[in-house]
Amino acid sequence: MKFRVKDMDIATGDILVAILNEKDAKKLDLHSGDRVLVNYGKKSTVAILDISESKRAVPEGKIGLFEEVLDKLHIKKGAVIDLGFTGKPESVKYIRDKLFGKTLAYTELYRIIDDITNDRLTAVEKTYFVAAGFINGWSTEEVVDMTKAMVETGGQLKFPGVTLDKHCIGGVPGNRTTMIVIPIIASAGFTIPKTSSRAITSPAGTADTMECLARVELPEKRIKEIVRKTKACIVHGGSMNLAPADDKIIEVEHPLSIDAEGQLLASVMAKKYTVSANHVLIDIPLGKTTKAKNKKDANHLRKMFELIGAKLGMNVIVIITDGSQPIGNGVGPLLESEDVMAVLRNDPLAPEDLKEKAIKMAGILLEMTGRYRRREGAKVAREILKSGQALKKMQEIIKAQGRQKKFTLGEYRKPVKSGKKGRVKEIDNEIIAKIARMAGAPHDKGSGLFINKKIGDSVKNGELLYTLYAENKFKLDLAVEFLKKNKGYIIG
Amino acid sequence: MKFRVKDMDIATGDILVAILNEKDAKKLDLHSGDRVLVNYGKKSTVAILDISESKRAVPEGKIGLFEEVLDKLHIKKGAVIDLGFTGKPESVKYIRDKLFGKTLAYTELYRIIDDITNDRLTAVEKTYFVAAGFINGWSTEEVVDMTKAMVETGGQLKFPGVTLDKHCIGGVPGNRTTMIVIPIIASAGFTIPKTSSRAITSPAGTADTMECLARVELPEKRIKEIVRKTKACIVHGGSMNLAPADDKIIEVEHPLSIDAEGQLLASVMAKKYTVSANHVLIDIPLGKTTKAKNKKDANHLRKMFELIGAKLGMNVIVIITDGSQPIGNGVGPLLESEDVMAVLRNDPLAPEDLKEKAIKMAGILLEMTGRYRRREGAKVAREILKSGQALKKMQEIIKAQGRQKKFTLGEYRKPVKSGKKGRVKEIDNEIIAKIARMAGAPHDKGSGLFINKKIGDSVKNGELLYTLYAENKFKLDLAVEFLKKNKGYIIG
Repeated sequence: MKFRVKDMDIATGDILVAILNEKDAKKLDLHSGDRVLVNYGKKSTVAILDISESKRAVPEGKIGLFEEVLDKLHIKKGAVIDLGFTGKPESVKYIRDKLFGKTLAYTELYRIIDDITNDRLTAVEKTYFVAAGFINGWSTEEVVDMTKAMVETGGQLKFPGVTLDKHCIGGVPGNRTTMIVIPIIASAGFTIPKTSSRAITSPAGTADTMECLARVELPEKRIKEIVRKTKACIVHGGSMNLAPADDKIIEVEHPLSIDAEGQLLASVMAKKYTVSANHVLIDIPLGKTTKAKNKKDANHLRKMFELIGAKLGMNVIVIITDGSQPIGNGVGPLLESEDVMAVLRNDPLAPEDLKEKAIKMAGILLEMTGRYRRREGAKVAREILKSGQALKKMQEIIKAQGRQKKFTLGEYRKPVKSGKKGRVKEIDNEIIAKIARMAGAPHDKGSGLFINKKIGDSVKNGELLYTLYAENKFKLDLAVEFLKKNKGYIIG
Repeated sequence: MKFRVKDMDIATGDILVAILNEKDAKKLDLHSGDRVLVNYGKKSTVAILDISESKRAVPEGKIGLFEEVLDKLHIKKGAVIDLGFTGKPESVKYIRDKLFGKTLAYTELYRIIDDITNDRLTAVEKTYFVAAGFINGWSTEEVVDMTKAMVETGGQLKFPGVTLDKHCIGGVPGNRTTMIVIPIIASAGFTIPKTSSRAITSPAGTADTMECLARVELPEKRIKEIVRKTKACIVHGGSMNLAPADDKIIEVEHPLSIDAEGQLLASVMAKKYTVSANHVLIDIPLGKTTKAKNKKDANHLRKMFELIGAKLGMNVIVIITDGSQPIGNGVGPLLESEDVMAVLRNDPLAPEDLKEKAIKMAGILLEMTGRYRRREGAKVAREILKSGQALKKMQEIIKAQGRQKKFTLGEYRKPVKSGKKGRVKEIDNEIIAKIARMAGAPHDKGSGLFINKKIGDSVKNGELLYTLYAENKFKLDLAVEFLKKNKGYIIG
């Protein structure tokens, strides 16, 4: 059935919507909420149907399309599309099976991941998938299968020779080692094409932070050129069709701030596999308020990563690091990017903890290549950083990706002071993250907080613990209101 | 912040949507997918924000509202609304807790149910709630609390004196006893205000079936009048603001055809509580392909119903009935309504099984009132049916609710025949339900199937098992395609 397209000029952010006039819908026996197939040339997508009751929004014979559908199919206003029927995909049955506790086979997981990739599942169906996996858990086999399915349903970036990669499972605010490790490794002559994600539960992901300096949403072709030229990149993986199901799954994890283990493992390993990484270093911060809350959980995750790495033919080393408090001084995209640049510039005020952790990690990666002996890697990494080569490399990467307009720090500020004298005993990562997010991070790049006191520091009554930054008064007030109950610090 | 309303003339079916121009959204730091508060007079609702990028859909200073928002707040085009901010409701935290396996307290469940009732949770958040409860289960206390919360967040219909009610947990196609029991009980002089739901996983709910005869979506005031006049009603509960959270939960159960125990218990008991029922009869069909698949499950459910009934001060009797095959001949709204009317008319061709089950249930209800002795109830019920009083009462109820336009049987038909000679050993309720649903039931009232052979009947090779009816060729073909693999019959 042919319909002429009306550009509705409405964007939902993620949901694909098509609108028919009520009369056309009745003729076709379609109802609001139904799944329809929009075919245009060789492209096709599933969309959710809304209804126009009068002819004002959409007259008979026309189909109204939201921006997401127009963009996906590259449809212009006035074009004619062919509307098809489509039942509920078979993968919904497999999701139901998982909800009932069944273990899924590769073909079943592939169908689910493929349908997610191609927008054939609704947000509610995806949510059942995530919730079922989250509560019932995934077997190692299921995770390996899910990883493979994620890789196979997207594009792959092949690079010649030895390719390195790193990943941190997160949970520690300010932990932006990637942006220091990448330029060091590339300076040493190794290929390290880093695709990062945006924040899920944190106030900033590497993609959000890098975006303060350079463009991170780049087409695949451009990224290949950048990596060929500079040996590296720090881009947003979501823009590249690498394991595209992952971001679509994260969309429904976001509302509840959950980060399910199976999804986490598959997501990380798929991203590494698609960039043809041979050596992968994974950082699991351990701390009361990180994702791995105890040694047992951390070791379990380590084993899972190494097991899945081996099954996928990758050399994986997992390090368990100190996650007891934020790393660096800044929390929030812009503030964290300033910490990174201070380290790369060898600024004497640059945060020591961030610098040392980055050197350690770069060192391990260098040793994994086999070119350096044990304990030699960190020395080489330190030398590259000190010499200014890493800064030069970072500038080269920024230039290649496209320099970003300058962001400014949030103009609404609030100094947060200690209510007593003593020594900082604990800092709660989750509370710090929550406060930074309430202030607007990661969406508002200039929002977040700058930390003055770390664990072990002595503080006077009324002395500054950190400064809160927000781009908008409403959000600052919201964060300050929350702060009154919990600043995230224990002073002993 | 004030905005003038533009009626977008778009209906989603359930989701409340508001649209701002991109420039206004930026000013307010709002993004697509954000939750906003639309205030109009004393009314207010949460809506999900979409964005208009050019000024074509929604210019600056205006807010585009979808039909669901306009209807809910009774807003007319050109009115001015006040747009407010609203964060994520606290109940999302409790849903997250349940996902992590925590037992929820009354106040937490109340907050969740209240936010669901008032559309403050998104479909994704509601889905996590359902999935978490489904997999982790609910304690008896939680179910009682959820029931109370559902009652308290809606209206209540108080009737003077003894009030009866009945319910079947479903799973058996064609099991439309309600529409026979209600007129019998009302003829006996008792008040029995029946609020039914629409089909969740079945090809027809009582509300869908009754709707073939009379209007079932009626305002509360009208229902009170009808019950005062006729002693009964058979209406859709969803239209009455009785435990309104229930239907909003069912919306997200629907896509995966799940029917979670805790939700089931709370939903049923809340509906009974809100109509001030004193005596409640609950029917649990037991069969390989019903919801209660074995004696143990059925007994567990019975205990839960009786326990929760006792905690809520209701006299509850649970009967476990034969659920081995469909009841009556028709499956699908119109075909089932024809079975019901045949029984009420004392038609010699009326299905015996449906008639006998209805008489048995009406008998128990009559005995529960205390007016009749043990074994006397069924006799009285049979007499009322035979005398034509029940038919007269049903016609009175239909007239009071408003007679419905006549529906016609689907014109696309397919006789389904046995591929061998023998005796019907088993009929699969789930497969029969699935075939009827694929053919269009319950949405297409005239779709479904008419059964010619029941368990124990002998069949010849090529003899008719049932006839499939559909209102639309596409759906008939879909059902026939499925049929080829499984007709739902085992001939031995």
